[in-house]
Parts: sequence; structure tokens; C-alpha cells
Amino acid sequence: MARIGFIGLGVMGREMALNLAKAGHAVVGHDVVPGVAEGLAAQGITPAHDLAAAAEGAEFVILMLPDTPQVEEVLTAPGGLLGRLRPEQLVIDMSTISPVATRKMAEALAARGVAMLDAPVSGGVTGARDAKLSIMVGGEEAAFARARPVLEAMGSKVVHVGAIGNGQTVKLCNQLVCAINIQAMCEAIALARASGLDPAVAREVLMGGSANSWMLENLGPKVLEKDAGAGFRIDLKLKDLRLANDLAFQQGVPLPGTALVTSLYLEARAHGEGSNGNQALFRVYDRMTAQER
Amino acid sequence: MARIGFIGLGVMGREMALNLAKAGHAVVGHDVVPGVAEGLAAQGITPAHDLAAAAEGAEFVILMLPDTPQVEEVLTAPGGLLGRLRPEQLVIDMSTISPVATRKMAEALAARGVAMLDAPVSGGVTGARDAKLSIMVGGEEAAFARARPVLEAMGSKVVHVGAIGNGQTVKLCNQLVCAINIQAMCEAIALARASGLDPAVAREVLMGGSANSWMLENLGPKVLEKDAGAGFRIDLKLKDLRLANDLAFQQGVPLPGTALVTSLYLEARAHGEGSNGNQALFRVYDRMTAQER
Amino acid sequence: MARIGFIGLGVMGREMALNLAKAGHAVVGHDVVPGVAEGLAAQGITPAHDLAAAAEGAEFVILMLPDTPQVEEVLTAPGGLLGRLRPEQLVIDMSTISPVATRKMAEALAARGVAMLDAPVSGGVTGARDAKLSIMVGGEEAAFARARPVLEAMGSKVVHVGAIGNGQTVKLCNQLVCAINIQAMCEAIALARASGLDPAVAREVLMGGSANSWMLENLGPKVLEKDAGAGFRIDLKLKDLRLANDLAFQQGVPLPGTALVTSLYLEARAHGEGSNGNQALFRVYDRMTAQER
Amino acid sequence: MARIGFIGLGVMGREMALNLAKAGHAVVGHDVVPGVAEGLAAQGITPAHDLAAAAEGAEFVILMLPDTPQVEEVLTAPGGLLGRLRPEQLVIDMSTISPVATRKMAEALAARGVAMLDAPVSGGVTGARDAKLSIMVGGEEAAFARARPVLEAMGSKVVHVGAIGNGQTVKLCNQLVCAINIQAMCEAIALARASGLDPAVAREVLMGGSANSWMLENLGPKVLEKDAGAGFRIDLKLKDLRLANDLAFQQGVPLPGTALVTSLYLEARAHGEGSNGNQALFRVYDRMTAQER
Repeated sequence: MARIGFIGLGVMGREMALNLAKAGHAVVGHDVVPGVAEGLAAQGITPAHDLAAAAEGAEFVILMLPDTPQVEEVLTAPGGLLGRLRPEQLVIDMSTISPVATRKMAEALAARGVAMLDAPVSGGVTGARDAKLSIMVGGEEAAFARARPVLEAMGSKVVHVGAIGNGQTVKLCNQLVCAINIQAMCEAIALARASGLDPAVAREVLMGGSANSWMLENLGPKVLEKDAGAGFRIDLKLKDLRLANDLAFQQGVPLPGTALVTSLYLEARAHGEGSNGNQALFRVYDRMTAQER
Repeated sequence: MARIGFIGLGVMGREMALNLAKAGHAVVGHDVVPGVAEGLAAQGITPAHDLAAAAEGAEFVILMLPDTPQVEEVLTAPGGLLGRLRPEQLVIDMSTISPVATRKMAEALAARGVAMLDAPVSGGVTGARDAKLSIMVGGEEAAFARARPVLEAMGSKVVHVGAIGNGQTVKLCNQLVCAINIQAMCEAIALARASGLDPAVAREVLMGGSANSWMLENLGPKVLEKDAGAGFRIDLKLKDLRLANDLAFQQGVPLPGTALVTSLYLEARAHGEGSNGNQALFRVYDRMTAQER
Repeated sequence: MARIGFIGLGVMGREMALNLAKAGHAVVGHDVVPGVAEGLAAQGITPAHDLAAAAEGAEFVILMLPDTPQVEEVLTAPGGLLGRLRPEQLVIDMSTISPVATRKMAEALAARGVAMLDAPVSGGVTGARDAKLSIMVGGEEAAFARARPVLEAMGSKVVHVGAIGNGQTVKLCNQLVCAINIQAMCEAIALARASGLDPAVAREVLMGGSANSWMLENLGPKVLEKDAGAGFRIDLKLKDLRLANDLAFQQGVPLPGTALVTSLYLEARAHGEGSNGNQALFRVYDRMTAQER
Repeated sequence: MARIGFIGLGVMGREMALNLAKAGHAVVGHDVVPGVAEGLAAQGITPAHDLAAAAEGAEFVILMLPDTPQVEEVLTAPGGLLGRLRPEQLVIDMSTISPVATRKMAEALAARGVAMLDAPVSGGVTGARDAKLSIMVGGEEAAFARARPVLEAMGSKVVHVGAIGNGQTVKLCNQLVCAINIQAMCEAIALARASGLDPAVAREVLMGGSANSWMLENLGPKVLEKDAGAGFRIDLKLKDLRLANDLAFQQGVPLPGTALVTSLYLEARAHGEGSNGNQALFRVYDRMTAQER
């Protein structure tokens, strides 16, 4: 069993850290919010009062943070871990952040002999709690092999997707396809409804052929029942879409569909639906067709 | 077994008519192109030299025509069948055309006591040949019940989707979702490629989760191999997208995603890809990213 | 002075016909709505009870009708004027309709020796009343020369823009640019407002440089004051945008911007704003940003 | 006359600094590229070998830098000027950068008693050389009044547009309108061309009415002549559009038109047109319609 420093104990991170502890690893946890790490002490997490204490002596330093600036803060900003990490330590960033920033940080770490993996997840809080996350890992083969058992304590599907940054890239590809497939479903259901066709019948027919998708199968019922509630939060979706648009900009790839669906999700958020599930895009279409009531 | 008048013996229609003949029906066929019906005589189709002769005495009058104007020509235009049809005959339009025009023609027929079903299909030439079409049927329950055995000689999946016009509506919903799901896939693959991620790996990961779709599973390999060839033809796709946009306009439903993907398919057609399969949308993305060569 | 048959005496047509009468022409008017032509008798229009009577003996047959099907009805449909017109008569269609349908009708007329001009207008009811319309004319040079004095009785700016159909084409080009320029203005004002910048200041600055447009100068004040009322009606705008999208489809030109702004105007119409002025697109942006109250 | 520290002596900055010198100010210049400041010594700029030397004793510290990170580097990053500036100094950032980042930096400066203006410009290299820039200034009234004479040595139009950050915001509003108005023009010209209408005639007509814009008047001729060359560079345009999209995202304003035109400009850049003028968007439309050769 390994010694693991775990930085970022939010709704996702805490579940992941607890699963590591349950699997027998020695987990030292830190969160920027005072008291959070201490609150997990009874469940087997050793609280660290600062970054340095969390990383000290850890074989793996795992990060689970909101966005790119927080990861930069922890790793490469002044006061970050960069100067303290040693070559035998492995950094695993499980946040969803910019692949370009990821590569830049990995280079800075590599210059000091420290390896890094990017390993964003999907599966939500439930997946985190049940150790059933999908984990998409970018980085060197050797580092991946070393990290694999640790990652498998948190997820049921751990895939190596190539070089550093690729974990983030594939995550963003996943998110843009999810968003656009939801949009396709919402457009069909809006058109069916307005045309006097029972949208449940439409869904049934579409599921039987080439229009089928995971979204149609799994979120279709919520859209039909106008259930905007639980699900992958729209504000998180927007964060990922922003990263996807940024990546597209940096790589010079025009993604008009992704750009358009992002503007639709912005409309959802403007109407206070940031904490609704991402299927709530149907409400934007309801509004557009004056069916919102 | 029934006597059936079959109007429109193109690449789809001829296969469907032959399946009806094989199933034991007496099929009288007509096509606007001289000689086409005669060419099928050896395979059991009785050729009719005009519309009237095809419809004369038929229990079912089936249409399989390119677009709305051709169906109007056959049914309600001067010289069309409207004045000749009798209440015991049932019109089944299997073309993909405007749901609004469909309802207008059905009303004109109903005024003379003649029932009509709209029954567009999916499954392509292969489905037509193998009698494995999906058939989406709109119209009265009684008319549907009467037509069912005939339709089942042409398709493996015959679904009643409600009132007249609904067959067309659900077909158009299906087509717009297909188009947008293809676009989603193309955007992800374009972004993966430009970012140095193996797009085959990206597809594999996406298929394992909430980004999965029939398109990713079935047309993904063609997109990865840059195979623009066979498949549902882009010019037919565009015809269906035009109908979907028109329906959205008439019903007052903004469908920005459908509008956008239509403009991308127009670009494909402008580059002479009308006869390529609809997965060839990837070439538009290749062009946009200057990867077309 | 000429004898003129004028078909279509709606809000625009009646003003144009009256201006022709005022200019000394002998105007015989007809409208599909009974009583309309008769109601203008006191103002110098000789009412005709049917199409034939309006066209009989007229040197110019002018049409001012809502859309393509109505013009086809009058000219080429069974019962239309096609069979009655004679080579010395000149047809001038001043409606805004499909350029492609225009060319088809002109060919049918030409086959009988009758010349046609398409001459759509801009300037609205005020322009029609004050004989200040802009008139964009397509057709043969000789026909244009012959029609010019008549057209100048209705408009202050009469431009020959080339072959038949070009009048309609340039009108549609004009309309799509207007729509997109309005959208640009609405996006800037929405962004300014949300960012705490006085939108009136923003407009002032933009007007001073390369972002200036007729729309910013003339409709900007209405957008700033949230005045959705008078102006070029949104439902007419949508009709023109539909024609522009159709033309783009037929000519194989992807116009993603036009497609997008059309979907935004559809949203406006869905919210009951069809009779508002086209500057009311700002309300769609207000709704998108949850500022609609 | 004032002592001015000028940081950033690129193609724009050097012209602005020279105009300040010409106006009699004592200009101390610094650029991150060694030798650049020294190269201007003969023209009256005193070279400073580092940031500190440029700012030392200056009444005004002016920045003209490529993007947000460079301005942060100079002002608030470790090693930046933040700790060295004194309350009697005034920072004027004339770069085009994020309004949100601008406000954050202004707050950091304010905490040390130092005032800041954001004062982005338009007018290009020519405007910079001829001291004819438009300058949009955000910040306190008193600071603006103090800076005005200095700004007027660089521009012919100096407008105070409200609080700090508003200069950037209005600049971004300007840029998005410019981009969309160009797109509108390109769509009209593409449609005119494909429809057989002389695009020069189309432009002439459109200029005479409600479709007119600065772009149609000034860049229309280049688009007609397919002159993609000189003009406001596409890569700078894209930088500004990225800032506009980011601001829209941060402020929660959906700007679908801006998002779409950004993806079209990305396509232009992908085809190596980054250094072409922004009117070269017509080439994207040429490509879309397969007219690029």
C-alpha cells in the first residue's frame, strides 16, 4: 500500500480519497478550506494543514481541483509544490482542466525529474462514492503502470489514452459530444411536440434506429417528463464546454456546433439553471418556443 | 392477397414493389420514366402506362417518389388521381415529403371519401431489397390495420405513430438527430486529431459512456478511416434537412442546431459530395482545419 | 399615360396603385378579397371583379402579392393569366418572392411572347404612400426602359440590377444583411449592458468607427429604449429570410449566419412578436440573458 | 510636459511612444525584446533596460502589450511593478485585454493607492503613426482628466466610457460588431454571386438603404476584388473575438452570432490567413462554396 497526498477534498475529492483509504492506502488530505481535511480524520484521512505537509513523503500526489488556475496554484505558482517534489514522487491530476496548461505544468515538473499523469474522471458523485469512475489517463506508460492500482481503487474503468494532456483532451471530446447529442434530442422533441406528434413515440422510434444515443436512452425520459432536476450540473458542463472551446481555439479547429451549444447552455445558466442536470437544455427550447410555462 | 398500384419505381421503389410481388400481391407498377415499369415485367410487376391504369381497381395505391411536388403531381394536381380514386381504395405515400403538404393532400382525399396513410421508410436500398425497412406510419387506426400486412411485406419494423403526417414528422425528427449526432462525432474527432490524441482511442472511450451513439458505433470507423464513400447519400440527407427546416419554420420552432448542420451539409454538396455517404461530413471538418489533403 | 392592371391591393399595393392613378395612369385594380377594389373607386381606381378583367387591355400588369404561391396562382396556375396575356403586355411583379420561381414563370410567359420584370421594393408602407420606394428591377433592358416611368410614379429610386430574378435576389441579399446587422447590434448592446457599460455610450463609440451601420444609426435608439413597436414587421422579415435560406439552398451556398439569425427571429415570432418591428430582436437577447422583465 | 514610462514597443507601441516624444514628453521606453528600446534612442526615446527603470519617476506608466498575460506579467505577477508604483503615478493600459482581468489588476493597484485607466485603441498602425487613434478610456473621471493631454498626443478621438474595464468592454463590443457585419456582407456577396447577380451591383443597392454599414462601404470593394491582403489582421481579430467570447461567458451572455463568426475566422486562420486583413473572411465563403480557386 502506498502513501498518498490528496489535495482537494470537495464533493468529488473526498469520496475518492475515502475510497483510497478504504483500499488500505495511507492518505494524507488537504483542502484550501480550513477544517475540511480535519472533518475526514474519523474516516481514515490524515489531515495536512498545508500543501507541503500533504505532499511530504507521499509516493503519489493526487489533485482533484475545480479548474486550471487552482491546479497551477498548487503545482507551479510561487508557493506551489514544484520546488518540493522529488523524482520518486508521481503527480496525478484528476481535475478537469486545460490540456495545454497540463502539458506546460508537466514540462515544468519533468524539468525537475518529476513525472505527472492527467487523469480526469467521469461518473459524477455517485461514481466517486461507489469507486466506479471512468478514468482517462494521459502520460508515460511507466507512470501509468505505477499509478494503475491506485486509480483502480477509485474507478472501474481506467484507460490509458496516450501522452500527457490526452486524458484532458478525451474528456473534453466526450463532453462536447454529450452536449451536442443532448441538443439533437431536444430539437427533435421540440419539433415533434410542436407538430402534434407524441414525443414519447418519437423517442421510441428514434431509439430503434440510427438516431439512437446514450442520451436518448438515458436522459430521454427526463426530457419527456420535463424533469430538469438531478444530473450532471449545467455549470460544470459549461466549465467543460469552455475548456473545449479554448482547446479548439488553441489548436485552430473550428467547432461551430460546440460553440453554438455553449451559447444555449449559457442561456440555461442565465435563467438560474446552473445546478440543474444537463438534460435541462430542453427548457431553453421550451423558452424559445414560448412553451416554458 | 391484394391488388396494389405502385407509383414510383426508382432505386427504392422497385425493390419494394418486387417484395410485394414476391409476397403474392398483384402489383401494377408505373414510373414516369418510360420503359421502367416494363423492365420489371419479367419479375412479376404488371406495367401500367399511366397513373390511371396503375390505380384502376387497386385496393392500395402506393407512392414512392422523390419529393413533395412529385407526390402532389400524382395526387392533387390537375391530371392527378384525386378525381379517380374511390372510397374503397387506400393511398399509402411512402415517400419522404412535407408533413404539412401531406395533411393538405389527405384532406383533399378525405373530402372524396378516400383514406391516406403517410409511411416514410428508413433503411436504404439494402433495407428495401431485404424487406427490412423501418416504416413509420401516420393516419387513422383502421387504415393502418388494413395496410399493415402489405407494409410488412416491405419492412421488418412497422410502427403506427399517430395521425396523418406524423409518419413524415417522426422521419424528419430522426434525420435531424442523425445529422447532429454525426456532427458531434466529427467535431470530437477533429479536435482529438488536432490535439495529438489518437482519434480511434477517443472513439473507444466515448463509446464506453454517455457520449455513445449509433453513429459513433456504426459510422465512427468510416470517419476514422476517412471513408467518404457508401452510405446514406448527402443529397438525400439535405433534402430531408430542408424538409425539417421547413417544418420547423411552419411550426414556429427555432432549431439552431439543425439550421447549422444543414449549412455544413450544403458545404459538402458544394464540394461535389452529394453522392457520398452522410458520414462524409468529416470532410467539411477536414477542410475547415486545412487537413483536406 | 398608360393603362395599368394592378393585382393585389393590400396595405402596400393600394398605396402604390393610388400613386399610379395620381400620376395620371388609368389603373384597373383587383384584389382577391371582395370589396377591396370597389373601396378604392372613389380614389380613381377602376375596380375589376376578376383577374381577367384587370389584365384585359392593360399595357402593364402589376402584381403586389404576399408570397410565391399567390404570384403563381395569378400567373401560371390553371385559371391564371398565362393564357390570356398578349405580347404587347408587360408583367411587373413587385411582390417579394422566390427568384427561382420568378425565372420559371418568366420563362413560361416568354414562351407566349410576354415579357416580365421582377421589381420588389423596400421602404415600407410610408415609402409606398409617399412614392419613395426603392425598387430593384430584374429583366430585359428594353422592358425596364418601358416600365421605368411607371415605376418612378411609385418610387424615388429605381435601379436595374440585371436579368430577370435579380430584383428578388438583391432584395433577399439586402434582407439578410439587415437581419445580421441587427443581430450584431443586439449582441453588442447585450454584452455592454451585462458588463456594466452604458449601452448608449457603447453605441456612440461604435457609430464613430468601423462598427457603424445604418441599423446602429437608425434602429439603435429603439433598441436602447427597448422600443419593440413599429418598424419592418418581424413576420415579413421571417418570410424574406425563409426565401433567402431557400435561395441559398437552391444555389448551394452555405449561409450559416443567415440560418442562425432566422432561428432567432423564429424565437421572436414564437413569443408573439410577429407584428413588432424587426429591431425587436433585442427582446430575444433579453430573454436569453433573463433580462426580459 | 510629463515624464512617461512606455512599456511595449511593438509595431503599435513604438509609433505611439514616438508621438509622445514628438509632443514634447520625456519618454522612457522598455521592451521585452532586447535592443528594441535602444533602437529608438535616436528618435528621442530614452531606453530602459528593465521594467523598474521604465517606471522609475514616471508620472504616467503606459502599457501597450499583446494580451492579458503580458499585462499581468508587467503589473501584478511576481517581479512586476505592483510593489514599486507610488500613488502619484498613473498606469494607463492601452493593450486590448480582458476587462475582468483589468478590473482585478486595478483593484490590486488601488489597494496600494495607484490609479489605473484602461485605454484600448482602434485605428491600426496607420492610426498609431498619424496620432489618429480612437482611444476608449475606462476609469475614474479625475484620472481620465489627468491623462487626457497625454492620450491626445496619440489619438484624435479620446472618449471616456465609464468605470475601469469599460474601455476594454466597448472595444470588444466594437470588434464583435465589425466581425458580424463583415460576415453579413460576405454572405450577401456569396449569395449574389452564386445566383448570377453582379455582386458589385448588389453592394451598390445595399449601400443605398438599411443594409448599409461601414464595412460595406470601406471593405466592400476589397471583397468584390477578392483582395485578402492588407487590413486589420485576422489573428488580431481572433484574439479580440476570443476576449469577447470569454467576457460573454463570464457575464453569462449568450452571443451565438459572435461564437459562430469566431469559428469562421478560426477556419480562415487554419488556412494560413492569420496575417491577412479581416475582410478575407470572404475566402472562407469561397471555400464553403467551392469557389476558392
